[in-house]
Amino acid sequence: MKYDVTIKIALKEGMLDPEASAIQNAITNLGYTTESLRTARLFLIRLDAPDREAARAMAQKICERLLANPVIHRYEVEVAG
Amino acid sequence: MKYDVTIKIALKEGMLDPEASAIQNAITNLGYTTESLRTARLFLIRLDAPDREAARAMAQKICERLLANPVIHRYEVEVAG
Repeated sequence: MKYDVTIKIALKEGMLDPEASAIQNAITNLGYTTESLRTARLFLIRLDAPDREAARAMAQKICERLLANPVIHRYEVEVAG
Repeated sequence: MKYDVTIKIALKEGMLDPEASAIQNAITNLGYTTESLRTARLFLIRLDAPDREAARAMAQKICERLLANPVIHRYEVEVAG
């Protein structure tokens, strides 16, 4: 069966995010006030798996082996229909 | 007041996404079957705004003037609490 899996990968709390700081500065220059800004990446994958739990396990393996660096990233996996 | 705004920026339908193709190939090499893969970026911003609608309008301006390229990107804005 096909499962739509959403993987969200972000830097762990406390990791420096220079891109986020640069964007926050740019927003300030546009005249808006931000208290904080964080960035994350989304991967929307349509996976072939025998069941929902297998799809989740696959997505976690894909994160660990390919998409995320466990030293600096945390990830969340959501499986839909 | 402070509003938590989530901005999601993705390539428009039909735009080539070579990064997504490369990741999809790599997943195939790991032994999993994917039907499709799309990528997106998330920006989680805590904004100072007089009300919810103002926060949404600010986030849309930030997308148009800074984060998104309207030729190739589409964006979604969500405002929470």
